Amino acid sequence: MSVNAADAPAFDLAAWSAAHLDRVERALERWVTADAPAGVDHGAPAALVQAMRYAVLDGGKRLRPLLVMAAWEAVSESTPAEPGQAAMTAGQLETALRAACAVELIHAYSLVHDDMPCMDNDVLRRGKPTVHVQFGEASALLAGDALQALAFELLTPDDNNIAPHRQAHLCRLLARAAGSGGMAGGQAIDLASVGVALTESQLHDMHRLKTGELLQASVMMGAACGDASKQALAALHRFGAAVGLAFQVVDDILDVTADSATLGKTAGKDADQHKPTYVSVLGLERSGAYAQELLGQALQALEQSGLPNTQALQGLANMVVNRIS
Amino acid sequence: MSVNAADAPAFDLAAWSAAHLDRVERALERWVTADAPAGVDHGAPAALVQAMRYAVLDGGKRLRPLLVMAAWEAVSESTPAEPGQAAMTAGQLETALRAACAVELIHAYSLVHDDMPCMDNDVLRRGKPTVHVQFGEASALLAGDALQALAFELLTPDDNNIAPHRQAHLCRLLARAAGSGGMAGGQAIDLASVGVALTESQLHDMHRLKTGELLQASVMMGAACGDASKQALAALHRFGAAVGLAFQVVDDILDVTADSATLGKTAGKDADQHKPTYVSVLGLERSGAYAQELLGQALQALEQSGLPNTQALQGLANMVVNRIS
Repeated sequence: MSVNAADAPAFDLAAWSAAHLDRVERALERWVTADAPAGVDHGAPAALVQAMRYAVLDGGKRLRPLLVMAAWEAVSESTPAEPGQAAMTAGQLETALRAACAVELIHAYSLVHDDMPCMDNDVLRRGKPTVHVQFGEASALLAGDALQALAFELLTPDDNNIAPHRQAHLCRLLARAAGSGGMAGGQAIDLASVGVALTESQLHDMHRLKTGELLQASVMMGAACGDASKQALAALHRFGAAVGLAFQVVDDILDVTADSATLGKTAGKDADQHKPTYVSVLGLERSGAYAQELLGQALQALEQSGLPNTQALQGLANMVVNRIS
Repeated sequence: MSVNAADAPAFDLAAWSAAHLDRVERALERWVTADAPAGVDHGAPAALVQAMRYAVLDGGKRLRPLLVMAAWEAVSESTPAEPGQAAMTAGQLETALRAACAVELIHAYSLVHDDMPCMDNDVLRRGKPTVHVQFGEASALLAGDALQALAFELLTPDDNNIAPHRQAHLCRLLARAAGSGGMAGGQAIDLASVGVALTESQLHDMHRLKTGELLQASVMMGAACGDASKQALAALHRFGAAVGLAFQVVDDILDVTADSATLGKTAGKDADQHKPTYVSVLGLERSGAYAQELLGQALQALEQSGLPNTQALQGLANMVVNRIS
C-alpha cells in the first residue's frame, strides 16, 4: 500500500511519534500555564488552570496532534532527514505545534464536559478520576470552557511567527469542527440516541460529527500550516474523513472486546446505556471488515494526493485501525 | 464632559441604538441558524441550534454589541450623516457586525453555563426560563459550548470581506477575554467566593475578569474593525476598563435596589447567597459614588483619545451607570 515501498527507507512510526509527542507534551505543558492571569489578587484563576492542566496533561494518545504534525510534514516539500525533522523552520514548527495543541485542547475540553453527570456521568478517564470528580462540577464546566477559549488563543499569537492568514484559517477550521455542525452537533445526536434505534446512516452522521469532524480538521489544520495544491488538499480531506470514521468504528469494537484497564475508561458502557454503536448495528465481524475497508480508502487517498511524504499519515491510519486500546 | 458640546448637533443615543440593535438582531437571527449542518440524517443538531437560538435571540440589552459598534464608529474617520450610518462600506459594516455578534455569543454562552445547577442554579433569565430549565442540562451544556465555537466561526468567514489580519486580531482579543485570564477566571473567583469575605482588591479582580474583560474586549474589538492610533487605542483601553467596572458596580447596586420583574432575573440573589458585592464591601452610598467616579474616568479617557466621533461611546457609558435595570 505504501508509496515507493521498495525505494524508501523503512519508516519508524514509533520513533516518529516519540519525537513529536515529546514536542507536543512540552508545548502543552508550557501553554496551559501561560494563561494564568498576572497580578490577580486571588488564587481561583490559578486553581482553574490546575483543573485545565489535569484535563490535558499526562494522558491521552495525542492522536489529533500527531495527525496535525503528520499532515504538516506531508505538505512540507523536503523529506525528513531524521524522524520528526521535516523542513522545520522555527516559524513553521511553531505554527504546527500551536495547531496540534489547539486541537488537543478542544478534544480535552469535550471529554471534560462529556464526562459530567448531566452527560455521560463517567468517573474514570485515562485511568484517573474525571475532572468533575477531582475538582467538582462547576470547576469542570469552567475548565472546559476555558480550554476552548485557550485553543483559539493558541492559534492567534500576537507575534510574527504565524502569518495572519494562517491564524485566521486555522481558527476557521477548528471553530467549524467544534461547533453545532461538528463535534457539539454530534454529541447532541449521541444524547438524543440513548435507547433509540438508529439507522446506519444516522449512526454514520452521529460519528462523522462527534469525532470525525475534529479528526478531519486535525489533518486539514496540519495541511494549513504549509502550502498544498487543491488536489492534495482534496485527497487529505478524504483521508481525514476515512480515518475519522474508522476511529469510531474501532472505538465501538474496543468498547465490546477490551477491558476497562486496557482502555483507561469504563468498557462496555455503550451497551449498558443502550447506545447504538457500529457493533450493535453491523455486528462485530462486519464492523471489523468495515474498519479495514476505511483504512484502504484512507491509504488510497494518500496515494492520490501526489504528496511524497505521507509515511507518518499512513502509519497513523494503520495505528488507528489496528490499535488495541 | 462631551467633546465640542457647543458645536456638535445633539446626539440621539436612543435613535443610534435602535438603528444598530436592528442590525445586530437581524445578524444574530441569520448567523445562529447558518450553522445547522446540511445533509445530516438526524434532527438533534437542529434541536441544538434551537437551544442556541433560545439563549441568544429576543433578549438582552446587547450592551456588548453596541460597544463594538460605537467603538468602531469612533475610530471611523468620517462623522455619521445620520444615526448608525458612519462610514459604512459593506466590508467594514460586515466586520463590525461579526465582531458585535461574536462578543454577544460569548456573553450568551456564559449566561447559559452560569445559570446551570452546578453553578448559580438560576431558573429565570431575561424573564424566561433559563436554557437548562427549558431544554435540559445536557442540551444547555452543549448549546453553550457550541455558541463559543460559533463566536470564533463568525470572526473567520471564508471570504474576502474581512482582511485576514483583522480576523486573527479579533479572535485573539475575544479568546483572551473569554478564557482563564478573563471571563472564565473571574467566574472561578466568583465560585470560590461564596460566603467568603473578599478584600476590595479581590472583589475588583473578580469583576475585572468576570465581566470587565469582555466589556473592554468589546471596545477593543470595535476599534480593531478600523484603524486607530496607538494613543487612541490606549485611551479606548482605559475607557473599556472604567465602563466594565462601572457596569458591575451598578449591577451590584441594582441587585439590592431593583425588583426581579424590572431586572428580568432573580433580584437579591447575591445577598441570599452571601456573595461579596460592591454594596456589601463599600455600602450602597459609596458604591453609587464609585460608579459616578468611574463614569468620569471613562469620559475623560474619551477626551484623551483624540477621536472626533465618540458620542455613542459617551452615551453608552452614561447609560451603563445611570440605568435602572
